Amino acid sequence: MNTRIAFFNNSFIEEEKVFLHVSDLAIQRGYGVFDFFKVVNDVPLFMHDHLDRLFNSAAGLGLEPGLNKTEIASIAQGLINRNKIPYSGIKIILTGGYSQDGYNPATPNLIITQQQMLPRPAGIFEKGFKVITFEHVRELPEIKSINYTTGVLLQQKLTLAGADDVLYHKNGEISEFPRSNFFIVMKNDKVVTPSKNILRGITRKKTLELARKHFTAEEVTVTLDDIRNAKEAFITSTSKEIIPVVMIDDIVINNGKPGEVTRFLDTKFAELCHNSPA
Amino acid sequence: MNTRIAFFNNSFIEEEKVFLHVSDLAIQRGYGVFDFFKVVNDVPLFMHDHLDRLFNSAAGLGLEPGLNKTEIASIAQGLINRNKIPYSGIKIILTGGYSQDGYNPATPNLIITQQQMLPRPAGIFEKGFKVITFEHVRELPEIKSINYTTGVLLQQKLTLAGADDVLYHKNGEISEFPRSNFFIVMKNDKVVTPSKNILRGITRKKTLELARKHFTAEEVTVTLDDIRNAKEAFITSTSKEIIPVVMIDDIVINNGKPGEVTRFLDTKFAELCHNSPA
Repeated sequence: MNTRIAFFNNSFIEEEKVFLHVSDLAIQRGYGVFDFFKVVNDVPLFMHDHLDRLFNSAAGLGLEPGLNKTEIASIAQGLINRNKIPYSGIKIILTGGYSQDGYNPATPNLIITQQQMLPRPAGIFEKGFKVITFEHVRELPEIKSINYTTGVLLQQKLTLAGADDVLYHKNGEISEFPRSNFFIVMKNDKVVTPSKNILRGITRKKTLELARKHFTAEEVTVTLDDIRNAKEAFITSTSKEIIPVVMIDDIVINNGKPGEVTRFLDTKFAELCHNSPA
Repeated sequence: MNTRIAFFNNSFIEEEKVFLHVSDLAIQRGYGVFDFFKVVNDVPLFMHDHLDRLFNSAAGLGLEPGLNKTEIASIAQGLINRNKIPYSGIKIILTGGYSQDGYNPATPNLIITQQQMLPRPAGIFEKGFKVITFEHVRELPEIKSINYTTGVLLQQKLTLAGADDVLYHKNGEISEFPRSNFFIVMKNDKVVTPSKNILRGITRKKTLELARKHFTAEEVTVTLDDIRNAKEAFITSTSKEIIPVVMIDDIVINNGKPGEVTRFLDTKFAELCHNSPA
């Protein structure tokens, strides 16, 4: 039975009791933002980066969180203390609030939940991801809004294709996955990731920082043609960390095996997570 | 005090008691569809067109309404009988449901509400609408999804500009307003409306049918350049009916006055509404 505690506006309550009235603009108009960070051994990972992004997203949609970052960090710690789920994810949702006319934002509703996560399965890195491409740019890509209509809809297509994820592009310019970022390693070991029409992932940022210590690493325009010449490719996200991409549509990358640079960065990223305070 | 009755999944309950758990995919991912029709003198207007569109939208997002159109029509009548709001709007929302993983749809939640509407103010037709343009195409425009992130966000811009609405275009090709359709009347009295990247409005459909009886009327590509040569322009929607557009950015249309064709169609549309069963 689920007795997890959540935080809703002003108080800690059982998550199973967190309900929003139908007039909330999330339900009326899909209007809201969120962010999500991992908790490892009861320690939040890169929480301040995530809170910075949450506040940027909220400002982008004109939503006022009502609490400051220190207060939200303290609530996250309150959930960690209460729920005792050492390996977990904390999700913060800020909605458009109970709108009078069903269109204009009101005082936002703030919901913070903590959910169990499973450590990345051992075999997933070695197996790598098979992905398909789809022409789409997310609406307001730099804002982590709750709107994932196309991403959710494409789940059916992924299942049919036997693929693990879908890579968005526009006119051949690659941007991102619905919930993850994309990197390629070029033949000269240069590490590149798309620079625009993306959500700036925190794992993406940390990976770029790590890559710059050991390789040349840049945010650039990445095209579908670049994939054909890529030595390695990988995906980054809070939940997935770093996973090799071994096939994109009909293009096999690095003979379908994880590449050396990808493996090196994944190891370095695991070390960083192990040693990082929030 | 609000004691309006709504319908939620299986039963009629007070609207103020209609709450969705935070796990609903509308809140988690902005995933859901809706439709909205008017009730005049306790009679639903063009309800079957709206229900057809709702079911198409639901199918487009892979959501199963759980009830058929006859059952939903009967619930609408149930609300009309209970609430006694002769001039009103009925909104039907179908969400992605309580998702286990916060990403994949579950059994949808169905919410039907009835709200008071005010008849169109007498002066609004004569005053007409001043609109601004904005480069944007809605995601999955032919599906009436709940996602209006850009439209809601642009409300602030509208207020600053002193404008009544915002007209979307892409590379100069006009599509629609966030919640309404767009028509122009050309110099030869030909009535045209954008053919693609739009939600197919029911008032748009009825207006096209009326226009075809008296003029040439076509769904075509309409560009920003066409506006400069337009004799008249107008907006159509369920709530607004037909309202002249007298200014688009810095372009004044028909000397800022309602045009004759627009007035004729508005009169004919009012007659149609007056004489229409659902």
